[in-house]
Amino acid sequence: SAMPGDSVDKENMITCTAPVNIAVIKYWGKRNEDLILPINSSLSVTLHQDQLKTTTTVATSRSFQEDRIWLNGKEEDISHPRLQSCLREIRRLARKRRNNAGPGFDATALSHKVHICSINNFPTAAGLASSAAGFACLVYTLARVFGVEGELSGIARQGSGSACRSMYGGFVQWIMGQQEDGKDSLAQQVEPESHWPELRILVLVASAERKPVGSTSGMQTSVQTSSLLKHRAESVVPGRMVEMTEAVRRKDFAAFAELTMKDSNQFHATCLDTYPPIFYLNNVSHRIISMVHRYNRHYGETRVAYTFDAGPNAVIFTLQQHIPEFVQMVQYFFPPEINGGQFIKGLSVDQAPLSEELKQAVGLEPMPKGINYIISTKAGPGPCVVEDPAQHLLGSDGLPKKTV
Amino acid sequence: SAMPGDSVDKENMITCTAPVNIAVIKYWGKRNEDLILPINSSLSVTLHQDQLKTTTTVATSRSFQEDRIWLNGKEEDISHPRLQSCLREIRRLARKRRNNAGPGFDATALSHKVHICSINNFPTAAGLASSAAGFACLVYTLARVFGVEGELSGIARQGSGSACRSMYGGFVQWIMGQQEDGKDSLAQQVEPESHWPELRILVLVASAERKPVGSTSGMQTSVQTSSLLKHRAESVVPGRMVEMTEAVRRKDFAAFAELTMKDSNQFHATCLDTYPPIFYLNNVSHRIISMVHRYNRHYGETRVAYTFDAGPNAVIFTLQQHIPEFVQMVQYFFPPEINGGQFIKGLSVDQAPLSEELKQAVGLEPMPKGINYIISTKAGPGPCVVEDPAQHLLGSDGLPKKTV
Repeated sequence: SAMPGDSVDKENMITCTAPVNIAVIKYWGKRNEDLILPINSSLSVTLHQDQLKTTTTVATSRSFQEDRIWLNGKEEDISHPRLQSCLREIRRLARKRRNNAGPGFDATALSHKVHICSINNFPTAAGLASSAAGFACLVYTLARVFGVEGELSGIARQGSGSACRSMYGGFVQWIMGQQEDGKDSLAQQVEPESHWPELRILVLVASAERKPVGSTSGMQTSVQTSSLLKHRAESVVPGRMVEMTEAVRRKDFAAFAELTMKDSNQFHATCLDTYPPIFYLNNVSHRIISMVHRYNRHYGETRVAYTFDAGPNAVIFTLQQHIPEFVQMVQYFFPPEINGGQFIKGLSVDQAPLSEELKQAVGLEPMPKGINYIISTKAGPGPCVVEDPAQHLLGSDGLPKKTV
Repeated sequence: SAMPGDSVDKENMITCTAPVNIAVIKYWGKRNEDLILPINSSLSVTLHQDQLKTTTTVATSRSFQEDRIWLNGKEEDISHPRLQSCLREIRRLARKRRNNAGPGFDATALSHKVHICSINNFPTAAGLASSAAGFACLVYTLARVFGVEGELSGIARQGSGSACRSMYGGFVQWIMGQQEDGKDSLAQQVEPESHWPELRILVLVASAERKPVGSTSGMQTSVQTSSLLKHRAESVVPGRMVEMTEAVRRKDFAAFAELTMKDSNQFHATCLDTYPPIFYLNNVSHRIISMVHRYNRHYGETRVAYTFDAGPNAVIFTLQQHIPEFVQMVQYFFPPEINGGQFIKGLSVDQAPLSEELKQAVGLEPMPKGINYIISTKAGPGPCVVEDPAQHLLGSDGLPKKTV
């Protein structure tokens, strides 16, 4: 810990932000638990940081006596193996760079301990996979502090598998790789966020009864027990990666949407084929799925897609022009507890009428309070450096600012 | 219809009963819709007719002007293709037999029309697959009336796929067969009902919110859209048929139970992998599944298994000795609307204490009225002839008795 009167060199404090991502071809199952190597490739959309982001400040100082970390205001155990993997790998690259660099290179930070402080701008209770944004932000910020450049997704991957995809903006694939050491298991941008500006994203935050099975242990059990998962990874996903990449490149919404829904359903199918079975979808999720299919059927085209990760929240993809009506429909079939602006957070949504024909075509019984709120967002950029020093989460004493 | 004053020859009226069966290796998907040929073999347990059965009376008379059928008191359309398949096939066999028989053989019935009357001793609303018992009973009774003997499961199969398994008691496999004409797609008894007297069965009749997708259209969509179903049928089920047959032969409850649960889950996984997805399990089913796994985990052995067909009802397998405690636990975690004897129908269940340790180990929040009632039963025999003429469902005028 910092000694009284010590102060952190401003040059050695960096603050960055990183985004959440949502997979449209799902990652489920590791072939190597330590290196976090997946049994199949996956593809995701990076969500915009205006709505969902992690902010991380890393400082180094001669006066720090040990590495320390604070997450959302609470000091956590730095010895966690996945945190240690990321710290070790970044320091290893930094040493490599120092050894290759000329004598003018400043590598003071390498001999110092780090203080890390990280917060999310969304509640953990929202059930959004915060570990992807968290580890992406940690690795990106550490790399800046230690002067490391180049490919970093392989390090983020060792913090949390899906974190590697949060190292890029827009549409990102995580190529599973073939090597035993995992050196070729990396994320790559397929298209930047500017590629498909009409694409819009809604996170429907559902009320969960129970805490679901964690994804780390869940996927272990699936790999051990589900024969359908093995088939999916080997024989289904490779073709879907090609199809999805093409759908994104062509901005073919119907193809993108159908494949997104099918892959979400297949992921949950492999969870159900796990022994004992794992359920992430509840009655609210089932109703959202029914509502989306009936909405699309009513219009005779695929205008909206859903995808669900290891929890009951739905992530909805649609095009800008369909957002007002769809949101109106969600509010009709899932009447919110508090009516009004608070139900919709993020990008503003215009009011729209809801036709009787549509209500009848969907024909579900309204389910009050099934959805807590909606986060309205879109695809966004990868990790960024925050230039304003006022945004640092650590004070000049190297400890979290009181406001955090 | 019968003319006033006409009367049915008692020799030409037969009443039979047939059982319901529950698959432990599931049938889902046809390779031929008309002949009802499955994409995989399946295996079931025939439930005892003391609790669940269909009764069917068939009469023939010179005076009947057309084939007619009454189901549960209501006249139905005899032209239904599957009914016609069964009638046609039985009459074809009867003609074949007449042509091969000597001149002494009485084949009068062959030139007559039939009246068919059928009832279930359980409500259709119970969501139990009544078509299997219904078609098995129809085919068995028609065969008696027309003097047809020998293999009949291939005809029952053409009424409703799973009906072929209701043609035998005990443990029955439906061998998928390889021939295009379906001649080798037949049911066979694996073991009779006397083989495993300790095995007990509970049907937990769950409250359903909505009518689920019918199995005929559901399996069509699955065959067309689920790549996991194809893999299951080709690569998973063949091995499981061998394992299940062995488990039944050895009366190895743990092996039988685990495979039963895994196969139920995999069937529902393929429904979820269907596009649009099909959900048969609801929150009540999910809780029953959790309860069973936690119960087994508490005892460190697999004492109880669940299986679910195309609806939310659970069918539970366990051994006689565990029935009282298990039923007590069901009543604790699913407090019934009406407490008392009406909650448990069928074979009587002794009272048993429920330990605090077990309640805490299961640790679910009680869900009032989640289960409507329990049918307590066991494995039972195949179709039987009812000898008592008082049990005929048709009167001497060839029309349903008023009491039906």
